[in-house]
Amino acid sequence: MRSVTRTLGLSSAAMGLTALTALAGSGAAGAAPAGGESLYAPSALVLSVTDGEDAVGGTVLRAVTLVCAPRPGGTHPDPEAACAELQAHAPDLDALAEPRPDAACTREWSPLTVTAEGVWQGRRMSYSYTYANPCALWNSTGAAFTI
Amino acid sequence: MRSVTRTLGLSSAAMGLTALTALAGSGAAGAAPAGGESLYAPSALVLSVTDGEDAVGGTVLRAVTLVCAPRPGGTHPDPEAACAELQAHAPDLDALAEPRPDAACTREWSPLTVTAEGVWQGRRMSYSYTYANPCALWNSTGAAFTI
Repeated sequence: MRSVTRTLGLSSAAMGLTALTALAGSGAAGAAPAGGESLYAPSALVLSVTDGEDAVGGTVLRAVTLVCAPRPGGTHPDPEAACAELQAHAPDLDALAEPRPDAACTREWSPLTVTAEGVWQGRRMSYSYTYANPCALWNSTGAAFTI
Repeated sequence: MRSVTRTLGLSSAAMGLTALTALAGSGAAGAAPAGGESLYAPSALVLSVTDGEDAVGGTVLRAVTLVCAPRPGGTHPDPEAACAELQAHAPDLDALAEPRPDAACTREWSPLTVTAEGVWQGRRMSYSYTYANPCALWNSTGAAFTI
């Protein structure tokens, strides 16, 4: 249950932004994408589980996509629950990553590292959390990382 | 047309791996995911366009997801073409990011930075390329970054 690396690419200044104000403030007029403008600040994430405590160099066991606007989707097994959790807690995902206090897990050190990276409401996100063993991950508080 | 940052998280050693051998070598037996094992090494990417030359701190204008197995999908506008390009060129995406030699663009400096991050065939990927201006991006060789 040790958090080895934890980086939050989202600045706290971004927290109060709604999707519309974030887009309006982006100065994007000169860079209109080929597909037309969206009414939502972009959000697109990859959530992954890596063997070991090295999220960058380790072997990735699972990786799913998650989008939350205009509706939850992606290859995540439960995008509705994951999006609700992210909307409640992002950018600090510890509240949904940490194992439940009542989880009955051993202290065996067989680490797994989860990551959430990509873009959340127009800002880059890079989050990771390392669990002591698979039991701790499968007993995490939220649904976002049980992929 | 200046490449300001370019990081390749994929090691060249990963290039020869097939999906099955990558999975077989992952030592994942003790960390079986809740959803069951996949026959494919995980691939899940977020492709984005950021205003300016700072991919980390800049405002993200567009972000899409891309998955390529078992079939192309995600919110990318042309996942079939993007997956074909990635399968031909990853991890070095310069061949599909660079503007076409015959592109008729001015030299105006109004930079946009594209990124591809997430997981490609079981290995973490982090790629970025900065264009001098939107014209250079919309005239990039491949379809992957015209999102």
